[in-house]
Amino acid sequence: MSKFAKTHEPPYYAVIFTSQRTDIDKGYEKMANRMVDLASQEKGFLGIESARDSELGITISYWDSMDAIKNWKENSAHKIAQEKGKTEWYKNYSVRICKVERDYSF
Amino acid sequence: MSKFAKTHEPPYYAVIFTSQRTDIDKGYEKMANRMVDLASQEKGFLGIESARDSELGITISYWDSMDAIKNWKENSAHKIAQEKGKTEWYKNYSVRICKVERDYSF
Repeated sequence: MSKFAKTHEPPYYAVIFTSQRTDIDKGYEKMANRMVDLASQEKGFLGIESARDSELGITISYWDSMDAIKNWKENSAHKIAQEKGKTEWYKNYSVRICKVERDYSF
Repeated sequence: MSKFAKTHEPPYYAVIFTSQRTDIDKGYEKMANRMVDLASQEKGFLGIESARDSELGITISYWDSMDAIKNWKENSAHKIAQEKGKTEWYKNYSVRICKVERDYSF
């Protein structure tokens, strides 16, 4: 599978999630994979791109509408993961909700 | 220095650059560092976040306005780097120009 998200023509929406991990594992990878699976089943999900190195992780999910983003934020399994993220997995993170206005690729 | 970009209250703009590298080095890291230096001197530059693993690299630069993004795209040293990126450093990449509408952090 390509690691690039295949999104349609703009406009669409992006959630930029930038994070630094703690040293605590406790099922992190399993949860992360499950969240990708669950998100991709949500209505309006377009794709996801992710990279992590020793200093920072960036995950960007792409969505058809703001409503789709809101629904995903309220997904019950996702809410549990968000809580556990704060108490165990992440030292700190930031979330940015964006409207993608233009795109191109090479 | 924190690896997180310190951006002001939305709205502001983001350029999401997702890429896969070739095996060609030829001054890549030096160029990448120089581009960060040059970008940060541009009017309207707010910050940058970057992560790369074996599969994908993601760099997000944040800007005060669309005009600032246009100016940076036209920066002459940046244009040379863009050309060299296509012929040497990148197998493929995508660029997305976004308006950040909301953000929060933990």
